[in-house]
Amino acid sequence: MGEPFRHRLRVRYAECDMQGHVFNAHYLAYFDLTLTELWRAAIGYYGLMTERGVDLVVAEANARYLAAARFDEEIDVEATIERLGTTAITTRFRVLRGERLLVDGWLRHVCVDATALTKTPIPGWLRDALAPWVIAASPALPGA
Amino acid sequence: MGEPFRHRLRVRYAECDMQGHVFNAHYLAYFDLTLTELWRAAIGYYGLMTERGVDLVVAEANARYLAAARFDEEIDVEATIERLGTTAITTRFRVLRGERLLVDGWLRHVCVDATALTKTPIPGWLRDALAPWVIAASPALPGA
Amino acid sequence: MGEPFRHRLRVRYAECDMQGHVFNAHYLAYFDLTLTELWRAAIGYYGLMTERGVDLVVAEANARYLAAARFDEEIDVEATIERLGTTAITTRFRVLRGERLLVDGWLRHVCVDATALTKTPIPGWLRDALAPWVIAASPALPGA
Amino acid sequence: MGEPFRHRLRVRYAECDMQGHVFNAHYLAYFDLTLTELWRAAIGYYGLMTERGVDLVVAEANARYLAAARFDEEIDVEATIERLGTTAITTRFRVLRGERLLVDGWLRHVCVDATALTKTPIPGWLRDALAPWVIAASPALPGA
Repeated sequence: MGEPFRHRLRVRYAECDMQGHVFNAHYLAYFDLTLTELWRAAIGYYGLMTERGVDLVVAEANARYLAAARFDEEIDVEATIERLGTTAITTRFRVLRGERLLVDGWLRHVCVDATALTKTPIPGWLRDALAPWVIAASPALPGA
Repeated sequence: MGEPFRHRLRVRYAECDMQGHVFNAHYLAYFDLTLTELWRAAIGYYGLMTERGVDLVVAEANARYLAAARFDEEIDVEATIERLGTTAITTRFRVLRGERLLVDGWLRHVCVDATALTKTPIPGWLRDALAPWVIAASPALPGA
Repeated sequence: MGEPFRHRLRVRYAECDMQGHVFNAHYLAYFDLTLTELWRAAIGYYGLMTERGVDLVVAEANARYLAAARFDEEIDVEATIERLGTTAITTRFRVLRGERLLVDGWLRHVCVDATALTKTPIPGWLRDALAPWVIAASPALPGA
Repeated sequence: MGEPFRHRLRVRYAECDMQGHVFNAHYLAYFDLTLTELWRAAIGYYGLMTERGVDLVVAEANARYLAAARFDEEIDVEATIERLGTTAITTRFRVLRGERLLVDGWLRHVCVDATALTKTPIPGWLRDALAPWVIAASPALPGA
């Protein structure tokens, strides 16, 4: 029974476009940096994976834009692991300003051998470390 | 019977990450700039829309990463309009290096009133202008 | 007798280039976001300026790169106002990892009328608010 | 008697900030990509340097912002090598919209051994290849 990992960040000026909103592509970067923080909570630091011979590559990304984040606002990015397959991890991200959901998306990563870059099963130690943030997949999650 | 719009670009050094690949979020920016070029071909310049009272906002983005583009490579971004609804436009993008498909994705935009920012039907003149690049939706396109 | 304003941040993956270092242009964005935080400390929030009829535009930027910041490192950006002229503000930035100086640079801003965008004197209330971080200019500061 | 190298590019939407202007840091990225094109003209492709055992690292960057480039404008970046020292290269960049000078800046690079990353003299073959774009330093160029 996992619960969301949460990372707070503040919108930077350079991330906002002419409409005063965060440009759509930057939300994928928000997802990515939140995952780095989730990894820190789970295994200490991201680099431990490559030291132990595995790495993750992004296979698919998705984002639905419901409302805009603006310059200098503090927003929360919630992450939950909605599918932990044999070789693939689907992480769902919800960007919130207070209670208001702004963006709802997900990233699907594939576990690869750190040198050969070929698909490899997610090792047990990593699977165990991620367990606190694994929840049952939402039916609304495409591709999960 | 539309055919793809095609825009060629060269991968910039600052777009590549530590793995030497274009960072995943930047492909959404590639989609966006290709759409600007498609708009130029269709209606002359993007700003004509707001001058005529309508604008587009991104409602959803998706990208599947099949292979990596690298620094200094020339790549082509193909765009086809796979759904032209009453208020929504779904554009599919295929990023290619030569014949090799690297990224396959789509953006769904919603047409809004340029001042009120409320949903409004795509005007006839815009619908007509986009016709050359409209094709029947691929069955593989989620959300279209 | 001012002392530096200090803002801590963590290097993001997307900010690092193929050499594993923060790409040079991103340091100017680090300077900019640190200035936003200094402004928060000085006047509450950046937008107060435009509400009161003035704004700042960047007139010149400079950075000397002494050592590299890398992915996931925590770094501090120190800011001091080294020149508070009639219409211009030169702010010096020092990027540090612990005691190690990585980048030393400055931004020169000009105060403008928020609507006409013409040069205007820095108002007294802003000058007073910035006083805690004003120090005598370093002789090494070009253009100050 | 060199003359400027010239590279044309179009301002991307994601590069423009809330004021509708190219965000200041992105001009350094424009300088960088223009240098990549100058290198292509001089030696064929950038990677030839590392293949031959040398690389360049940025030691200092400077930009003076005179007027704003805006979304969808075509601009030219002119590059001239204003100082070709034993180990350092200072390249000046002028960003123009038509005849109008928008940004005037420079980058100073240091030649390093590609593996040890220690300072090394610019090899003769590279010096010869860059000759067409070397001009006498402008007196206005600080740090050159």
